[in-house]
Amino acid sequence: MSTEAERSIALENKIAASPERFRVLTGDRPTGPLHLGHYFGTLQNRVRLQNLGVDTIVVIADYQVLTDRDVADDLPGHVRELVLDYLAIGIDPARSTIFTHSALPALNQLLLPFLSLVTVPELQRNPTVKDEIAHSHQGSVSGLMFTYPVHQAADILFCKADLVPVGRDQLPHLELTRTIARRFNDRYGRVFPEPEALLSSAPALLGTDGRKMSKSRGNAIALRATADETARLVKGAKTDADRVITYEPERRPEVSSLVLLAALCREVEPERIAQEVGDGGGGALKRVVTEAVNDYFAPIRRRRAEFAEDPVLVSELLREGNLRAGAAAEKTLAEVREVMATVY
Amino acid sequence: MSTEAERSIALENKIAASPERFRVLTGDRPTGPLHLGHYFGTLQNRVRLQNLGVDTIVVIADYQVLTDRDVADDLPGHVRELVLDYLAIGIDPARSTIFTHSALPALNQLLLPFLSLVTVPELQRNPTVKDEIAHSHQGSVSGLMFTYPVHQAADILFCKADLVPVGRDQLPHLELTRTIARRFNDRYGRVFPEPEALLSSAPALLGTDGRKMSKSRGNAIALRATADETARLVKGAKTDADRVITYEPERRPEVSSLVLLAALCREVEPERIAQEVGDGGGGALKRVVTEAVNDYFAPIRRRRAEFAEDPVLVSELLREGNLRAGAAAEKTLAEVREVMATVY
Repeated sequence: MSTEAERSIALENKIAASPERFRVLTGDRPTGPLHLGHYFGTLQNRVRLQNLGVDTIVVIADYQVLTDRDVADDLPGHVRELVLDYLAIGIDPARSTIFTHSALPALNQLLLPFLSLVTVPELQRNPTVKDEIAHSHQGSVSGLMFTYPVHQAADILFCKADLVPVGRDQLPHLELTRTIARRFNDRYGRVFPEPEALLSSAPALLGTDGRKMSKSRGNAIALRATADETARLVKGAKTDADRVITYEPERRPEVSSLVLLAALCREVEPERIAQEVGDGGGGALKRVVTEAVNDYFAPIRRRRAEFAEDPVLVSELLREGNLRAGAAAEKTLAEVREVMATVY
Repeated sequence: MSTEAERSIALENKIAASPERFRVLTGDRPTGPLHLGHYFGTLQNRVRLQNLGVDTIVVIADYQVLTDRDVADDLPGHVRELVLDYLAIGIDPARSTIFTHSALPALNQLLLPFLSLVTVPELQRNPTVKDEIAHSHQGSVSGLMFTYPVHQAADILFCKADLVPVGRDQLPHLELTRTIARRFNDRYGRVFPEPEALLSSAPALLGTDGRKMSKSRGNAIALRATADETARLVKGAKTDADRVITYEPERRPEVSSLVLLAALCREVEPERIAQEVGDGGGGALKRVVTEAVNDYFAPIRRRRAEFAEDPVLVSELLREGNLRAGAAAEKTLAEVREVMATVY
């Protein structure tokens, strides 16, 4: 057993023992509907943590949309859809706080002291920034893209979160947040915890084209898709010519991802799904997957449709969430200004 | 007559014709006491503009202190001395607004959208940043130093200032602010004016060592210096061996700077001071300079001492200034969020 796996288990045990002692910060950029990859990758885990009793804070990172595009199209629409997705999957605004970071000036002010704690070479080295630079829609990288790991540190540290669920690719970001927290505490006095990564153990789902499921690749099945849309998308998914269905992620990634999706929805082992389909081929597998997805998401989609009918629900929920998160940000900023001796 | 000089005169005429239509943004980093170079270079002009009826806003750029040092030593002390200097020279808090930018979260939030409007190469090209990088006390340039021209744009644009008094070396900064204002307006809708530079016409005073007068070089005569300190500092100033005093800034920079200082204090032409001293040599010149400085600054220093006796004056003045500037920042941020469609 690797040290990393051991650490994950130890952390999960600590959380299970006293969930109320933990605060988790998670979130998304409002760039489009959430999909099944998000759900089984992170969203399900958020709801699990919330339901355990962990204080859950969800940031809608609306400024981050501008890091890789010039103008965010229909931000209010995307934000609304995101909130409806959250509510539908079981994020409960009575127990969790959902907010947009553009509504929290005190959070955003933390960017200033935090920028003084990192060097330009450190920002240049960040692999995710490097990667996003490579995929940037813009001819040249903006100052916002360049500094966004520091802004992300503000998103995490403003509420003194001590847990951040991340994928392996986001570990360098969280490491920068930890570095900023440590340097701030060393220089000015202890204000921030060093948040720990809660590494996702969920295997990644592939999109219908066999590549990583992603909003921007058009290969995703959205949470909010109808049963018919789901059937059509699954039907169009890439498989292979072998009629005997098996779960072999390395050798047969596309077929295994479909098997896994059905298994996740039915909460059974992937091998059982494979056995069930047997030599029915891709067609039979896809029927099983479609039924599993539609069964699992039917109540979620029904709740979503109900929430969507309320014309003021989302804006009221955000107003409330922004107030609550804003109060936390102002409290933290006051401590920051105090220890930095910028209160006159 | 150069186009630049023509533009300056035209601008000054416009200000004189309707000063109440203009808002000026000026300010300083709280890094030490203001000196005579500041006074005749910019401070005198601020008071002139204020007294003309121009709306004058003065930023104490406390976060900017961190751009070239790790920790700001005694920030509260420096801020207090700066405010006392302002009051002493005639900045009138009833007519002008003095604030610290660390107290205005809404101003600081503007850094986020503004960062999305500039590219990393543009930030790298900024000559003042290049220069400050070269003189940095730190091994490596911080993210705050790298982005500080963008934060300066927030300092200027939050209050929609249309005039910024600058030295020639700060013109590239102001150009970046104008670029940010223009790009923001083009992309989202008109919110910001493009502020104009009010180029200082004052010739630069040299320090007592013959180099540019500067807080960090220890060659400055502080506004708040006593008459005795002033006499001692002037007595130690560099001159040359020629006993006949003339005003020839190119050929005799140190002597001419002393002549100029006396002339500025007595509000006469430098040639008249030179004539008066005649062949009295450096000693006679220094006596004339000391008397001129001490005569001119006596009332300013007296007022400063009176203000310094009031234990709550500075903090009350800053509270009031921060409230007023904060209201302007919140109003501007609300407009920014509206046109960026980040109100949900």
